[in-house]
Amino acid sequence: MPPLLTRIDHVGIACRDLDQAIEVYRATFGLEVVSTEINEAQGVREAMLRVASGNGGSYVQLLEPLAADTPVGKFLARRGEGVHHIGYGVADIGEALSAIGATGVRLIDERPRHGSMGASIAFLHPADLGGVLTELVQFVTLP
Amino acid sequence: MPPLLTRIDHVGIACRDLDQAIEVYRATFGLEVVSTEINEAQGVREAMLRVASGNGGSYVQLLEPLAADTPVGKFLARRGEGVHHIGYGVADIGEALSAIGATGVRLIDERPRHGSMGASIAFLHPADLGGVLTELVQFVTLP
Repeated sequence: MPPLLTRIDHVGIACRDLDQAIEVYRATFGLEVVSTEINEAQGVREAMLRVASGNGGSYVQLLEPLAADTPVGKFLARRGEGVHHIGYGVADIGEALSAIGATGVRLIDERPRHGSMGASIAFLHPADLGGVLTELVQFVTLP
Repeated sequence: MPPLLTRIDHVGIACRDLDQAIEVYRATFGLEVVSTEINEAQGVREAMLRVASGNGGSYVQLLEPLAADTPVGKFLARRGEGVHHIGYGVADIGEALSAIGATGVRLIDERPRHGSMGASIAFLHPADLGGVLTELVQFVTLP
């Protein structure tokens, strides 16, 4: 089968204090925030810091939970701060979900939903992928 | 300060059975192994699966511990399978270590050492980076 993944889109990192985490990545690596948003559906306040450009780019995504009873809030309580998930780029998220679903890997999102910076995203179940919560990302080319 | 990081080089994933983990990533995403090696110093048997090419590329790095009392072996006992560390590309690892050390972030490796596929690598302390064990990678251009 041809590879479905086009790049590592982002590393999703759970943090308790978004502004403090942004400052750590800025001061240590010179990374700059290119987008911040509140995603009520996912229960997070988040920032995207660009690591690389081109073909949709690659990012550090910092995630602060909006409440303790959100997925990221529960992750922090259970595991502490650290890597929450990995996002990979795909050319066509609908095709990718069909192909991956056919392999038996469970899809958390059967259909794409709204992600950072207007992208279409979907999560795959970590239990079928060696403990790694995995996200597919089809980026949107801005006009 | 200018950004030190050039790309997300790899996601390092701890697994109990390397061959089984390779098969999961092959069957699910079509990723192929481009390098396998045993790194006695780090106590791992590992495989690099290419996600993207160019500028050193981006990889999924699967890590199986050589013994229970290695860093990855202890990680598995404590956390189970999942993301162990994140590797970022840098243009000059010596300069990067100097600059990052000057910010106060603790360096696990004061000097670069041997990493996957001949790269020069160094780890930074997760306690200073929001719980994320972070690796710097200067890739070697093959002749």
